[in-house]
Amino acid sequence: MFEARLLQASLLKKILESIKDLVESANFDCSPEGISLQAMDGTHVTLINLVLRNEGFETYNCDRSLSLGLSLVSLSKILKCAGNDDTLTIRARDNESDTVTFVFESPKNDRVSDFEIKLIDIKNEQYSIRKSDYSAVIKMPSAELQRICRDLSIIGEIVTISANKEGVKFSVSGDSGSGNITIKPTSDSDVPAEQATVIESKEPVVLNFALKFLSNFTKATPLSPMVTLSMSEGIPVVVEYKIDDLGFLGFFLAPKIE
Amino acid sequence: MFEARLLQASLLKKILESIKDLVESANFDCSPEGISLQAMDGTHVTLINLVLRNEGFETYNCDRSLSLGLSLVSLSKILKCAGNDDTLTIRARDNESDTVTFVFESPKNDRVSDFEIKLIDIKNEQYSIRKSDYSAVIKMPSAELQRICRDLSIIGEIVTISANKEGVKFSVSGDSGSGNITIKPTSDSDVPAEQATVIESKEPVVLNFALKFLSNFTKATPLSPMVTLSMSEGIPVVVEYKIDDLGFLGFFLAPKIE
Amino acid sequence: MFEARLLQASLLKKILESIKDLVESANFDCSPEGISLQAMDGTHVTLINLVLRNEGFETYNCDRSLSLGLSLVSLSKILKCAGNDDTLTIRARDNESDTVTFVFESPKNDRVSDFEIKLIDIKNEQYSIRKSDYSAVIKMPSAELQRICRDLSIIGEIVTISANKEGVKFSVSGDSGSGNITIKPTSDSDVPAEQATVIESKEPVVLNFALKFLSNFTKATPLSPMVTLSMSEGIPVVVEYKIDDLGFLGFFLAPKIE
Repeated sequence: MFEARLLQASLLKKILESIKDLVESANFDCSPEGISLQAMDGTHVTLINLVLRNEGFETYNCDRSLSLGLSLVSLSKILKCAGNDDTLTIRARDNESDTVTFVFESPKNDRVSDFEIKLIDIKNEQYSIRKSDYSAVIKMPSAELQRICRDLSIIGEIVTISANKEGVKFSVSGDSGSGNITIKPTSDSDVPAEQATVIESKEPVVLNFALKFLSNFTKATPLSPMVTLSMSEGIPVVVEYKIDDLGFLGFFLAPKIE
Repeated sequence: MFEARLLQASLLKKILESIKDLVESANFDCSPEGISLQAMDGTHVTLINLVLRNEGFETYNCDRSLSLGLSLVSLSKILKCAGNDDTLTIRARDNESDTVTFVFESPKNDRVSDFEIKLIDIKNEQYSIRKSDYSAVIKMPSAELQRICRDLSIIGEIVTISANKEGVKFSVSGDSGSGNITIKPTSDSDVPAEQATVIESKEPVVLNFALKFLSNFTKATPLSPMVTLSMSEGIPVVVEYKIDDLGFLGFFLAPKIE
Repeated sequence: MFEARLLQASLLKKILESIKDLVESANFDCSPEGISLQAMDGTHVTLINLVLRNEGFETYNCDRSLSLGLSLVSLSKILKCAGNDDTLTIRARDNESDTVTFVFESPKNDRVSDFEIKLIDIKNEQYSIRKSDYSAVIKMPSAELQRICRDLSIIGEIVTISANKEGVKFSVSGDSGSGNITIKPTSDSDVPAEQATVIESKEPVVLNFALKFLSNFTKATPLSPMVTLSMSEGIPVVVEYKIDDLGFLGFFLAPKIE
């Protein structure tokens, strides 16, 4: 028996909105420690890494590990039925069951919704995610990254990200012209530390990425006011959104080689 | 001579938005008692019943009954020109005239708009609307019904509505999965009586409906904060929106037989 | 060397949004007095006349006149990257250069964006704009004109504007019916003078215009709360939006002869 209760159904709704256009279906791996999901997009260019720890749930019961294979399209349709303030309970019987149940309850308990989704069989691939010692780690407002991706997408398809201690430069070039947007570390001491742009740079780094994927990652913006970009030459950038006390949603994107 | 003046042109605008996608053209039957409209949609599955009583108008003059046949598409285009706070005057000469005039006046009287629409000849069918003693009468927030129809439409095409004293359950099933949304009567005494969900149930009732039509009815949501569903086995459900002191807009929908 | 700095990049953004659907590319003529642009739409029915005076800029340096030929489509894409509170600096070297640079700076200076656009060669046509002594000059809220154009476009394609001392009547006729919207001069003394509808009429005037073009002009509504229509029989109407202390954006539209 697996049962996990989340105070905010809207959190899972936002997670699904962030990943459902990248991956059609995936395994939610439930263990006593929490729920995790790892999946690559169809073109094998980006890897999604979702971690939701048991202590972030209102209640969490998992006797033994099980893998819930779900169509993310179907799940996102069903999560659209959750009200913004609804709680969510996920229920699955042991591995023999072929459905999982999602229950949404309104705060006043005057509306209860329960949905059953059929489980599907998905080959469980294991991706090794190595912790790197990155050349540059940038923490910046997630809305700012979203805006930059949206704006630069109008002009070109490839963004060059150059980071050093002084700032991060996003450059693009296309038929209309070329441009650079430069973000500097926050120097204004009135800005609270948790909203400040911070750049940790060991050595300058310059990488090219497909804007299409970066833009897609920024659909996770509603999950967190800040986003972290970790970059080193020759390895994938990690774009990571913290999810309250629950865990995080990370995206890996391989750089374009010119 | 027929002349009726309504303080809020926006009311007729909202009525037209609710019915124009169901019926292309209809007769507005004007009598000394008020204006009424009865029309079936093209597929003869739903019946619209609109009643606007004379006492709800600012002024109302109707010597003898006349039938104004109008293209609802044209009328809705013209009502789009009414400001939200405009008053509306409807004017028609006796049966010999072939146009009707709609006049919108802004509150400060600095903008006056008048529009003429050609009358069209529509066969006047009389529908007998029997008052039934329904098995279940549900009064609930109209926005809630709209949301349920919108959410469940994502999952399937047919909704099963099951009502008894404890609550109303809306069930749907589709390729993504299946689900139920259950609404319970308001028990919280802090909710004012006019906003409370109330279920009057003589005997349990279970009926199936095409979500497409129910969703269409909920376009009337801006007309009233509450909606009433009256149901009995084997006869059409009535979905009714009260229009302030003016009257009501009701929709009849035959249940689907499995 | 040409360099002009504007406190509100959003002003140029709004100007481009107003004209980019009428004209594909145009010369920005920069002289010591300021920047001006004159261009006709592809069908040669409307003329755009933009004047931005040097004194409205934060700083303005122009040694000798130069003409910056730009794709308005490209420029509008690049201006989409300007934040609402960003300042804008336009920089061009002398005539030998083949690019122009636009720099956006955020108020806190934590984001700097610079864009280069290629200059294009556009034949400089000179349009003679004669000052007329118009039969009627109407100053009215720009949002009101926008609404009238939008509303009447639903009903027909040609608007007849009739102006005299008592008011301005916008008339349209189409398959749905026909209608008139009449605007009267503001008589309410509570309305501040700068928001009041004022009609100066020497003699009554009646002119027909293509609503498509008039509607297009009203995309300039965000530039100014008021708009001025200057009309005489047989010559183009001038629809003019004042741009703060900077200048104005005017549109000329030839009347339709019946």
